[in-house]
Amino acid sequence: MPASLHKVSDSAIRRLSIYLRVLGGLEREGKETVSSQVLADRAGTTAAQVRKDLSLFGSFGKRGLGYLVTTLRDELRGILGVSRTWRVALVGIGRMGAALLEYPHFRARGFEFVAVYDSDPEKVGSRRGMLTVEDARVLEESLRETGVEIVVLTVPAGAAQEVADAAVRAGVRGIMNFAPVALKVPPGVRVNAVRLTVELEVLSFSLGSVADRD
Amino acid sequence: MPASLHKVSDSAIRRLSIYLRVLGGLEREGKETVSSQVLADRAGTTAAQVRKDLSLFGSFGKRGLGYLVTTLRDELRGILGVSRTWRVALVGIGRMGAALLEYPHFRARGFEFVAVYDSDPEKVGSRRGMLTVEDARVLEESLRETGVEIVVLTVPAGAAQEVADAAVRAGVRGIMNFAPVALKVPPGVRVNAVRLTVELEVLSFSLGSVADRD
Repeated sequence: MPASLHKVSDSAIRRLSIYLRVLGGLEREGKETVSSQVLADRAGTTAAQVRKDLSLFGSFGKRGLGYLVTTLRDELRGILGVSRTWRVALVGIGRMGAALLEYPHFRARGFEFVAVYDSDPEKVGSRRGMLTVEDARVLEESLRETGVEIVVLTVPAGAAQEVADAAVRAGVRGIMNFAPVALKVPPGVRVNAVRLTVELEVLSFSLGSVADRD
Repeated sequence: MPASLHKVSDSAIRRLSIYLRVLGGLEREGKETVSSQVLADRAGTTAAQVRKDLSLFGSFGKRGLGYLVTTLRDELRGILGVSRTWRVALVGIGRMGAALLEYPHFRARGFEFVAVYDSDPEKVGSRRGMLTVEDARVLEESLRETGVEIVVLTVPAGAAQEVADAAVRAGVRGIMNFAPVALKVPPGVRVNAVRLTVELEVLSFSLGSVADRD
């Protein structure tokens, strides 16, 4: 992988991930090739953006022919690291945690929940699909034994840093954080935060601007 | 509001939203002032970034004193449009929809669910907290009557565009889209997409890069 890849922005990665979804749809429709324009339309961006994003990783298209759907899909799967399966643990079984655990698209994309933890004694030992809820007090040891690579955090804000610290000690290198708090992690560990109220505020900010323009 | 506001990036808005959260915490701790460094540490960014973000909207800090916590919080609430209440509807009561409906932080931030819709006859008429699930077939009319301003979409990908079209006809100007599909909306309508598998792929891409570096 060329060194330049390390500088690819999260926004570019998000678009690649969306192109991958579009290519899956095209393949199911039996399409063999696709132009950057059609790919862009379905992904909600521009043809120039598609070409720019893909050119970061090599030369995939053929002039006048477009991209080969299956080939490009396989390339993108490799680039995004979804051509393999990631071992994921969920910590914190509230309503959001339960919803994520049963979110069908994760597994389809190569993210497999292999363990689930909570600190509530009433939840520990109960079943969630194929998994049994384990006690968060043994988190570090259990994550290590289970070979977990990514942790999805749906614990209250006050507990999030402690859980993250234990996960890092257990060798986890990726954390998807739903708790409304900024986590501190050592270099080499990546946190991606999903903050739902923040996303609603991005909307309300735009609506405020629109209203002012009217 | 100065015209320049319309050019503020979503990333800057996300950070402002996080500063707002940090300021709320500082206020509860009884702090009256805060330096850009402390604000940055708690928000997981740098002091220079804090100063740059805030400077987009005016001059809030005092040299050597920092920012007045309550004043800055009130300013940010105004800028982000959360000093008012937004009327929000949820369309699609699957597990994710149900989790969002009961997410306590939305209400605390001024986003109030005033209506909920589903197309499943077994769900229509059932209670969800204070709300009764309404039939998605009357969506457009009902959204208009209820004065809904923001719609949260948690329907399957195949239904999302149709629902969005109805919402737009009903006067909705903001859509938070959890469906894995790019929505087409007219100018003046803002869509913010939350794509959970995409966020996991941002993580797996980074982990792939890290592994390659080792």
